[in-house]
Amino acid sequence: MGIDELLSLLEGVRAGEVPVDAAASRLSSPPIHDLGHSQLDTHRELRCGHPEVVYGAGKTPLQLVEISRALLEHSDRLLVTRTTDDAAALLCAEIPRAVHHPASGCITVEPPDAGEGEGLVLVVCAGTSDLPVAEEAAVTARMLGARVERLNDVGVAGLHRLLGRTDLLREARALVVVAGMEGALPSVVGGLVERPVIAVPTSVGYGASLGGVAALLAMLNSCASGISVVNIDNGFGAGYQAALINRTPQATKR
Amino acid sequence: MGIDELLSLLEGVRAGEVPVDAAASRLSSPPIHDLGHSQLDTHRELRCGHPEVVYGAGKTPLQLVEISRALLEHSDRLLVTRTTDDAAALLCAEIPRAVHHPASGCITVEPPDAGEGEGLVLVVCAGTSDLPVAEEAAVTARMLGARVERLNDVGVAGLHRLLGRTDLLREARALVVVAGMEGALPSVVGGLVERPVIAVPTSVGYGASLGGVAALLAMLNSCASGISVVNIDNGFGAGYQAALINRTPQATKR
Amino acid sequence: MGIDELLSLLEGVRAGEVPVDAAASRLSSPPIHDLGHSQLDTHRELRCGHPEVVYGAGKTPLQLVEISRALLEHSDRLLVTRTTDDAAALLCAEIPRAVHHPASGCITVEPPDAGEGEGLVLVVCAGTSDLPVAEEAAVTARMLGARVERLNDVGVAGLHRLLGRTDLLREARALVVVAGMEGALPSVVGGLVERPVIAVPTSVGYGASLGGVAALLAMLNSCASGISVVNIDNGFGAGYQAALINRTPQATKR
Amino acid sequence: MGIDELLSLLEGVRAGEVPVDAAASRLSSPPIHDLGHSQLDTHRELRCGHPEVVYGAGKTPLQLVEISRALLEHSDRLLVTRTTDDAAALLCAEIPRAVHHPASGCITVEPPDAGEGEGLVLVVCAGTSDLPVAEEAAVTARMLGARVERLNDVGVAGLHRLLGRTDLLREARALVVVAGMEGALPSVVGGLVERPVIAVPTSVGYGASLGGVAALLAMLNSCASGISVVNIDNGFGAGYQAALINRTPQATKR
Amino acid sequence: MGIDELLSLLEGVRAGEVPVDAAASRLSSPPIHDLGHSQLDTHRELRCGHPEVVYGAGKTPLQLVEISRALLEHSDRLLVTRTTDDAAALLCAEIPRAVHHPASGCITVEPPDAGEGEGLVLVVCAGTSDLPVAEEAAVTARMLGARVERLNDVGVAGLHRLLGRTDLLREARALVVVAGMEGALPSVVGGLVERPVIAVPTSVGYGASLGGVAALLAMLNSCASGISVVNIDNGFGAGYQAALINRTPQATKR
Amino acid sequence: MGIDELLSLLEGVRAGEVPVDAAASRLSSPPIHDLGHSQLDTHRELRCGHPEVVYGAGKTPLQLVEISRALLEHSDRLLVTRTTDDAAALLCAEIPRAVHHPASGCITVEPPDAGEGEGLVLVVCAGTSDLPVAEEAAVTARMLGARVERLNDVGVAGLHRLLGRTDLLREARALVVVAGMEGALPSVVGGLVERPVIAVPTSVGYGASLGGVAALLAMLNSCASGISVVNIDNGFGAGYQAALINRTPQATKR
Amino acid sequence: MGIDELLSLLEGVRAGEVPVDAAASRLSSPPIHDLGHSQLDTHRELRCGHPEVVYGAGKTPLQLVEISRALLEHSDRLLVTRTTDDAAALLCAEIPRAVHHPASGCITVEPPDAGEGEGLVLVVCAGTSDLPVAEEAAVTARMLGARVERLNDVGVAGLHRLLGRTDLLREARALVVVAGMEGALPSVVGGLVERPVIAVPTSVGYGASLGGVAALLAMLNSCASGISVVNIDNGFGAGYQAALINRTPQATKR
Amino acid sequence: MGIDELLSLLEGVRAGEVPVDAAASRLSSPPIHDLGHSQLDTHRELRCGHPEVVYGAGKTPLQLVEISRALLEHSDRLLVTRTTDDAAALLCAEIPRAVHHPASGCITVEPPDAGEGEGLVLVVCAGTSDLPVAEEAAVTARMLGARVERLNDVGVAGLHRLLGRTDLLREARALVVVAGMEGALPSVVGGLVERPVIAVPTSVGYGASLGGVAALLAMLNSCASGISVVNIDNGFGAGYQAALINRTPQATKR
Repeated sequence: MGIDELLSLLEGVRAGEVPVDAAASRLSSPPIHDLGHSQLDTHRELRCGHPEVVYGAGKTPLQLVEISRALLEHSDRLLVTRTTDDAAALLCAEIPRAVHHPASGCITVEPPDAGEGEGLVLVVCAGTSDLPVAEEAAVTARMLGARVERLNDVGVAGLHRLLGRTDLLREARALVVVAGMEGALPSVVGGLVERPVIAVPTSVGYGASLGGVAALLAMLNSCASGISVVNIDNGFGAGYQAALINRTPQATKR
Repeated sequence: MGIDELLSLLEGVRAGEVPVDAAASRLSSPPIHDLGHSQLDTHRELRCGHPEVVYGAGKTPLQLVEISRALLEHSDRLLVTRTTDDAAALLCAEIPRAVHHPASGCITVEPPDAGEGEGLVLVVCAGTSDLPVAEEAAVTARMLGARVERLNDVGVAGLHRLLGRTDLLREARALVVVAGMEGALPSVVGGLVERPVIAVPTSVGYGASLGGVAALLAMLNSCASGISVVNIDNGFGAGYQAALINRTPQATKR
Repeated sequence: MGIDELLSLLEGVRAGEVPVDAAASRLSSPPIHDLGHSQLDTHRELRCGHPEVVYGAGKTPLQLVEISRALLEHSDRLLVTRTTDDAAALLCAEIPRAVHHPASGCITVEPPDAGEGEGLVLVVCAGTSDLPVAEEAAVTARMLGARVERLNDVGVAGLHRLLGRTDLLREARALVVVAGMEGALPSVVGGLVERPVIAVPTSVGYGASLGGVAALLAMLNSCASGISVVNIDNGFGAGYQAALINRTPQATKR
Repeated sequence: MGIDELLSLLEGVRAGEVPVDAAASRLSSPPIHDLGHSQLDTHRELRCGHPEVVYGAGKTPLQLVEISRALLEHSDRLLVTRTTDDAAALLCAEIPRAVHHPASGCITVEPPDAGEGEGLVLVVCAGTSDLPVAEEAAVTARMLGARVERLNDVGVAGLHRLLGRTDLLREARALVVVAGMEGALPSVVGGLVERPVIAVPTSVGYGASLGGVAALLAMLNSCASGISVVNIDNGFGAGYQAALINRTPQATKR
Repeated sequence: MGIDELLSLLEGVRAGEVPVDAAASRLSSPPIHDLGHSQLDTHRELRCGHPEVVYGAGKTPLQLVEISRALLEHSDRLLVTRTTDDAAALLCAEIPRAVHHPASGCITVEPPDAGEGEGLVLVVCAGTSDLPVAEEAAVTARMLGARVERLNDVGVAGLHRLLGRTDLLREARALVVVAGMEGALPSVVGGLVERPVIAVPTSVGYGASLGGVAALLAMLNSCASGISVVNIDNGFGAGYQAALINRTPQATKR
Repeated sequence: MGIDELLSLLEGVRAGEVPVDAAASRLSSPPIHDLGHSQLDTHRELRCGHPEVVYGAGKTPLQLVEISRALLEHSDRLLVTRTTDDAAALLCAEIPRAVHHPASGCITVEPPDAGEGEGLVLVVCAGTSDLPVAEEAAVTARMLGARVERLNDVGVAGLHRLLGRTDLLREARALVVVAGMEGALPSVVGGLVERPVIAVPTSVGYGASLGGVAALLAMLNSCASGISVVNIDNGFGAGYQAALINRTPQATKR
Repeated sequence: MGIDELLSLLEGVRAGEVPVDAAASRLSSPPIHDLGHSQLDTHRELRCGHPEVVYGAGKTPLQLVEISRALLEHSDRLLVTRTTDDAAALLCAEIPRAVHHPASGCITVEPPDAGEGEGLVLVVCAGTSDLPVAEEAAVTARMLGARVERLNDVGVAGLHRLLGRTDLLREARALVVVAGMEGALPSVVGGLVERPVIAVPTSVGYGASLGGVAALLAMLNSCASGISVVNIDNGFGAGYQAALINRTPQATKR
Repeated sequence: MGIDELLSLLEGVRAGEVPVDAAASRLSSPPIHDLGHSQLDTHRELRCGHPEVVYGAGKTPLQLVEISRALLEHSDRLLVTRTTDDAAALLCAEIPRAVHHPASGCITVEPPDAGEGEGLVLVVCAGTSDLPVAEEAAVTARMLGARVERLNDVGVAGLHRLLGRTDLLREARALVVVAGMEGALPSVVGGLVERPVIAVPTSVGYGASLGGVAALLAMLNSCASGISVVNIDNGFGAGYQAALINRTPQATKR
């Protein structure tokens, strides 16, 4: 709560327009919808422009239905990530407009008039095995209002596949670059564009890939500028931040 | 090189306006200024809006002077990071307009008419020991055109210091959040704003901080959305990406 | 054996009241009930106020029944942790007063007149997925005589959920704070109260959470004072220590 | 701020007794003394019974003098940890009542009438090389009001040194157990007492001790109950928590 | 594309023999066969002497059939590594000449007139459990044109088994040495021959073998000269490089 | 082959008593029984007093039968470690005198007149979950000729269980001490006896036990003298070395 | 204290020959010489055949002199390890018979009639850089009564250096094998002898040797039987255990 | 020793042409020049075409002079790596033809008629800070008979620098690719050539580069074929293996 809002509330209390109890409640009680197993922030869309995203892993199908319904009472958008097949089936059965994205395990609900989004987030993917992570990034960015394009199977061992698409690379307002194994693709992309690159290491690999740690370390040590990194396999996190960047309004001088 | 530029060059070849040798050279030779010890990209400012940044660590003072002079022939801006005191002294002696930022070890040259920058990058810093890293981020973002403000000593063990400044947090177009030890500050900041947060772990701490790895892992595992991470102590990388985000133009529908 | 008890025993030997053989046995043989697979300390409740706790993992259902019965011969309290569903079913069938706590896998037996406990141990939990660990802490502290309350789903990405409950936080004599992912919650709680905080990292997370090591390291590096840490997912250990703290009598000047 | 205090403040506003500006300031401005390089919480002693502790590492001698003087304006107690010899000399020269504890690098100021403390915190130390860490724990606990005793050089390879002192072990209200190398001492102590044990791994050792990580892991995996762990070499943290435990008032039924 | 080829193409453009569109396409479009899920480099055999190798892990049986057929349109050789039994069965059913190597999970197609290969790659294997990795190396080197021999079960704990075969060791042009556990065999072999040794750590072992990391580290630290290392269990990578070495033509003075 | 044996063989060649071919074969061919999948050293019992031990993990039941039969042609003793239940059943069915030790998964064959062994190897075990590893050590030491006794469930959290048995500890010629979790038992035992202690870390534990690495590190860093360590869960290795030590003949002055 | 000694003491109490106070003191007070900074076990030579060894690291020269003098009052033998040059000089000046071993930093005092020792401990060393660790092992084993021989610079990359000395290898009663880098030498030695091998990894190496961890892991994973391992650079520990093994008396049937 | 040589020696014994003693010596005594601190293999050049290389680290200047002179008695070539400035100065003073390569710390002696070498080893280097490692590789390969060329400062963040030199890349018979930070360059080079690539990770970087481990892991996980890896900063090892590959004779069919 900003200082303006606080002063206004206190003026209301002084003027007798706002009862003390209501002000106290307002100052100590944020708008939380308590389901027992979860505390939902139902005012998030008002504040942020998009509702709370539901992380599906570790929740039962019934819990996910319950949460989804509660959120859809306040919004006509929904994003659930990392659902199991069982949870996805139940959600699609119980929530008429729900769409299942099997490659990433996401469930989405969009308003009927959702366009193709604004700006451009480009999701670049090194290898076929990395596609589920890339897809999670793409669905997430799309749900947060970005137009999304994909560039798949352009790993650094065959550079011509990437170099033939530099125009597309440079058109994007933010790039998500997904790679496993040695995780070198973000450095190469970062050297070709002057836009923020969000790098996503994946757990694709074996032996000394250490479950994605090799790719993670490589990306953190990139010699290219303009790269930041999210957790291993965290397509959601990368798509979310890319969409935030894509929504950045025009900068102005003060 | 984009496809338009390529077609135009080839048309010039067909028309006889561009000699074959020149076209071959153009297609295979990027504009590199070769100093022996370094290959400088002197056209970068034309392409990117700012010249190449010089990473000072591991270069001799004389090499840094040589590189800086070469870059200043093509630009009136210069940023050298991680200089030693010796290198900084020589650079300031040899390059009249050079400014030394001792907290971060940066050297900068700015054009005389440089304003205070556009947009706002906010650099938030958990503790006093993290200040050199935060300062590197701030100087970098400033040199790439952003207006920069700082919020220091607001670690999570005393939340009221941060909660009293939420208006400033929400005003920023991009935030750099610097923390060592348990690295919790980016999660808290990320829960308070809906803007991209670039988290910088520092090597501040001892014992099981493992030289900053503890803070790095915490930031990668943040439960808040909209956070990405750079290497330990990499204030430059965070400031660079925050400035790129700050420069993002208004998104438009296609 | 304290020096008083030792002197008394030796006086008994000198006085001929205690046979040499008995004294030798007493000095070399603690009161152990040997089941072959386990050596039970059946005098523990006399010394400590509560009987030995049974760690159920890696023991067969039959072994657990055998151990439980042997302990209940000396006490009317029982706590078995980390039982499988099979073991829990057998224990409940064989031991009439046994209660199964399915969320944590604990089995308890309490005397009929057990009240709600004394003092207050507060178990604070960051996310829904951390609940089994929190529940183990709560059951353990309850069995060791503490009144226990819970505060769930108050992770640092939505601070208002926690800040609205500071009165409860400050009422507790000891706090168990359970969190996975970046493990930041204990630092925030530790900054709000001046009571001992026992932090429990959980294995909740993926990728660079490294099975809970990220949260563990964060908690060990907390910038807040008054925090100590137990093993990953070790709700029992945290609940046990919190109950010991809760039982601390009033300090007196010497 | 608790809800009672909040209601009372708001009633004051309604009654016109508290000006709106003052209330707004009260609600948004904690009592922070801003030195530029540090933001001091000067009301801490009122709230917590002891003033803010100053972590000396990474601060200049002059900064430490400045901070110490500011804190001593609000309190007649001071604890500065991890000072260098230079800083300690300056602090002792500038602050008349300052006492230097060279073994641990602590500086303290105590009121003239400080007694020997209440309750008992026992600091147990495995080897001679671990003494600086044990000393930091002892000084800290003493400054937070505890009576402190020490038991040194009682490592597990010569158990009789420890077993001869079980009476002292059992007298303590809280124990700090400090050990490097294999870190086994807390497990043995934890098996002998039914009081909270705070284990402190030290970086004493070589080779596979990995700078104290071996001892840290051992302590986290202790098979004894009632043990929690702080960061490597963190004597301050252990002493602080032991003093908090020592201050725990008598539990009461509700 | 080499400079000669580039000049020739541009001359063709100038002479009007090559249309501008075709040249532009040629310069920006490598010969990629796009299957949606994969982008195949069908000209590889022309350039390199052998077609693209298919990494079978993480691809569905149907995808592998589709890729294999596409590659066999351009070549009469095929190597698919790391197939499951299901994929192998389908490939053998759908592709008449396909041969299944069950020990390594490889599928191969060879031209009818394939001889026994040229030169000699020797695959040395420490223990029976390492055989699948050794077999992958052998099949790979064979498919890239090398004559391959094997020397199995010659671990360092029984040196006489190896020392009896030094003639075979010295006959090889390149050696692949496969070992798990302590990974010492490459050092011993490297001390006996003056040929390149490609060391392959395997994940054979338990406990502190850390999934092959112990063997990997040992090989990287070999005190013998002439040894390089590939990823854990990466028989393919070692066989591939050994075959490249085997194909090296006679060196000539300039 | 020692120099005496070599001189003798060469004298035989010179005297015409040993044909050149036979000598060459003797010098280059150790007595190996090659089964294809394994190369058996059938003369080992002659040299070492006991036949080769068969490591059962990763071998098929049929391979184990084949190897066991081949070894029993040269010896009336057999030890197979780490068999699966299937392999054990087949071995017992096919080899009449085979005995299955289900706790450790060992299979043994002993001569009918095997006594109870000489000397004493004591296997000390911290907890019930560590018993399979302890049992493997015990069976191995027994098969190599040692008399073996066991001391189970004497972990350091209840020292009296161990201190009551110091006479047995001091009777042993070599001790195997098995412990998981914090791995402290070898340090305590090593402080009580002046005999070689072979420490075996087990993978018993969770969270920060890191699969036994915590116990391994603790044992390597033991502050007691006379302790060495084998791999995690390697009961065989510890039993083998303890038996070698037990067989050490009386030292003599030169 | 064994049970015989205990019975005897108690009989003395009953008979009035031993006063109760004396018996209590005897039962609770081991013979410790308390120097303040150290608690010396001055009866160790009576019990163990050799006095306490002094670990010199982290002790001041004066402390070492004080400890050494105290021990020499009860014994005519002394071993101090890891002294600095300053400490060694002071010890040699203050203690007339002290001998400095500069290669290992050990100080020894031996009785005038000390022979060359009994039995044979062989210290095998892989490379020149490993010699200080090997020397510490040799001096230690010598001081505990063993005859010691050395075999230096016999790393596995030149096997013939080792194979030429197999007679010496087989003569030893216990072997200490010291190696850095890939740590392969113990496996090779272990395959050549049927005696206990104590492996010592050293921190010799760079890069992925990780300060000796690579050699440590290799040794723990040795495929040869009869090998156990001590901490990195712990020559003392290996020499101590080898001497214990060397002192093992002849085993007897019961 | 091959079987032919062995048969011939034994025939000589039988014929009385070779004395038994000489044969025994020949069979058990390799040609070692023992300097006390080092055992030199002076016949290596006869066998391998180049003399033993001297690893200078950890040897005193005088030892290096002694070793160098001994080797130069048998050869007119010498390579000493990793000398300190002091050692280099002494070697150049004492050995007239010695040449110091200060960038890499190597000392070389070459015969007067050494040409520029045969074949081509190309040393590719990512950044200026990696040059010392690259230089060590280049000097080593040159001393083993290869013609060497260098390609410096061609890191992946500016791909055009590398793509402009593909002709040189493809001319090489073996490539050494040196990179720190994210270690991506070998993957890119490996995708451009069909020759063996030896990748050298360097310790250049900070924070999560973990002393070169990040680059090492990246290289081990390369998605390009034909790449193997040596230890961090091991320019010597890479240059040595590249030279061995370069010397590979033409393969022939059998």
